[in-house]
Amino acid sequence: MTNESLISQALEKKKAKHERFAEIDYIRLTDAQGGWPRGTVFLNNRAVPGYPSIGRVLNLEQGLEQQFYAPFHAEEKIDGYNVRIVKHEGHYLAFSRGGFVCPFTTDRLPDLIDTDILDSHPDLVICGEVAGPGNPYLEGHPPDISDEIVLLVFDLMRFDELGFFETTEKLNIIRQFNLPAVPYHGRFEPHQAQQIRDILPELDDRGVEGLVLKEEGARQKRAKYVTPASVVQDIRAMGDALMDMPAEYFTNRLLRLVLILEESPQLDSSQLRYELGCALIDPLLEAARNHPATHKVSHHFECRFRHRINAERFIQHISRAPQREIHSSVRSLEEDQDGYWVLTFERVFPRVSGLLANFLSGGQVHD
Amino acid sequence: MTNESLISQALEKKKAKHERFAEIDYIRLTDAQGGWPRGTVFLNNRAVPGYPSIGRVLNLEQGLEQQFYAPFHAEEKIDGYNVRIVKHEGHYLAFSRGGFVCPFTTDRLPDLIDTDILDSHPDLVICGEVAGPGNPYLEGHPPDISDEIVLLVFDLMRFDELGFFETTEKLNIIRQFNLPAVPYHGRFEPHQAQQIRDILPELDDRGVEGLVLKEEGARQKRAKYVTPASVVQDIRAMGDALMDMPAEYFTNRLLRLVLILEESPQLDSSQLRYELGCALIDPLLEAARNHPATHKVSHHFECRFRHRINAERFIQHISRAPQREIHSSVRSLEEDQDGYWVLTFERVFPRVSGLLANFLSGGQVHD
Repeated sequence: MTNESLISQALEKKKAKHERFAEIDYIRLTDAQGGWPRGTVFLNNRAVPGYPSIGRVLNLEQGLEQQFYAPFHAEEKIDGYNVRIVKHEGHYLAFSRGGFVCPFTTDRLPDLIDTDILDSHPDLVICGEVAGPGNPYLEGHPPDISDEIVLLVFDLMRFDELGFFETTEKLNIIRQFNLPAVPYHGRFEPHQAQQIRDILPELDDRGVEGLVLKEEGARQKRAKYVTPASVVQDIRAMGDALMDMPAEYFTNRLLRLVLILEESPQLDSSQLRYELGCALIDPLLEAARNHPATHKVSHHFECRFRHRINAERFIQHISRAPQREIHSSVRSLEEDQDGYWVLTFERVFPRVSGLLANFLSGGQVHD
Repeated sequence: MTNESLISQALEKKKAKHERFAEIDYIRLTDAQGGWPRGTVFLNNRAVPGYPSIGRVLNLEQGLEQQFYAPFHAEEKIDGYNVRIVKHEGHYLAFSRGGFVCPFTTDRLPDLIDTDILDSHPDLVICGEVAGPGNPYLEGHPPDISDEIVLLVFDLMRFDELGFFETTEKLNIIRQFNLPAVPYHGRFEPHQAQQIRDILPELDDRGVEGLVLKEEGARQKRAKYVTPASVVQDIRAMGDALMDMPAEYFTNRLLRLVLILEESPQLDSSQLRYELGCALIDPLLEAARNHPATHKVSHHFECRFRHRINAERFIQHISRAPQREIHSSVRSLEEDQDGYWVLTFERVFPRVSGLLANFLSGGQVHD
């Protein structure tokens, strides 16, 4: 089936949507269709493949043997957001996981990567993680990223082709073009769980999120595995808003943490228990203390744009998310001395805001 | 409306059910009806009033002023299960919150209370909490109750009358009949939040669940307030089974804990954070370590009956609960040297059991 007929079928079945960014029309798949994953983007009928979900293993000893049939490469997993970068009709565009042009990342591409590689390889799709304190999507960021935002490349794909470049080929291209990339931790066999476990304490100390493991060969099997520190960071990041998160936000992470400790007792400590307690108590306690002044629980974001128009497009972009639950509210958009446009906005958590308002004013609950 | 016509209406509307215990037929309200709360029991058309739910305040300073219009009495809140004890046709019966005869409590009444009071006051309904390590309903028990089970009386009612005895009258009767009762902490005014807060550190140190506050006068307004220690105990008790609990089990308790600390910083400590971390990690970690041998997560109960027939009725009673989720499974029923019948059973938590089985065997999850 040609992309053209696939797209019209997908549109008909409501599995694809027309979108527009600046003067660029594109189509994104809202569900997997015809072999293309959800989030696949069509630019003039050419497919930018969606970035597939990577399964998590919670036990390395069994998980590696079960999931991998061949040697695999270990790369650092970065706590940021996933983008795919392409060149299209002279424009460099960054697409989100769901297949939207991300106005923020697209605006900031010149700060993140030397796009020359896309001029000489126009078919390339660069997959990477954007992370740092200046990112507009995530509360929290890797502790060792002090730059406002960085892009770290972890995969290369091509237009119209499912699947990724092999790790060795990818590492060659990354070196050749001096691309910023996720740290690489070596090649392992499925029976080498202990060798992977030996890497973890150093990652955990540095507050690294974890590892992504990528099998060699045609299956392109992948798996991810995280550190205790990253679980505590995740919980702390949303500690004041846990009541606005899906129930599984907390219980999944707790299960992850416990299964890591079951397998790697050297990562266990009293300090970890104390920090988990702090992550749960401190952000919510601060929110409760501030509530009489703020009347709400919210997270503040400040992000910088090269062009005002992109900040405005970003505002439109975040206002498309369902606003019934957590909602975003713009505070200011002002030009900085260096010519960048600084957007400040907040994500408001209505459930915990309401609960605190009720209880701090003496309300009663029957539970 | 007479009780008789109310009962037939309730049965017709499916808000009441016929039940049977031994040779005793009774009717219980599954919903509030005609002014009687859910759990009200009709014995030969005479009402044993249901025990109403008591609302929780999470901020004393505001909560007391908002909820109470008159002085109130503070009693210790015990972490057990609520029963109402009556005499009916020569039998002493204990009813659960939902209005079932509890075969366990009914069997053990001679060990719990001198029932003479019901012979001289046949209209009396004694309301109390049953707690202790030998109770068949709750994992965990107050740390200072070392007896297998105890009953602690906290309210008196009469057949066919809504509402409770005034606290002073109740305390007189408790003294007169030497009834075991919940500890009493005095009489306070709504503006005396600080005086209530001053009681809390001692309760918290002893691991007491908290306080129930009961207003004097016709409104019979009540409120409950808990200690940080009880929150951590609750979480520890279900720490290995959090994934089988409603999402709110954890988040409600976390909010309680934080609002207590917001108002009473003297109850806050590093130790509390450490203990919260332990309560979340340790039971689940132990369950994960035991899983290869046990293949499941379950809590074990051992409870003693005076009469074998009541143990059998209890088994029937617990098997009536919906078994799709947490389910009970009997292990043994044997006569002890002292003539008591010892029932051992377990509550199995299928969700966490399945998750551990999957992940410990190397399964992958996309989340």
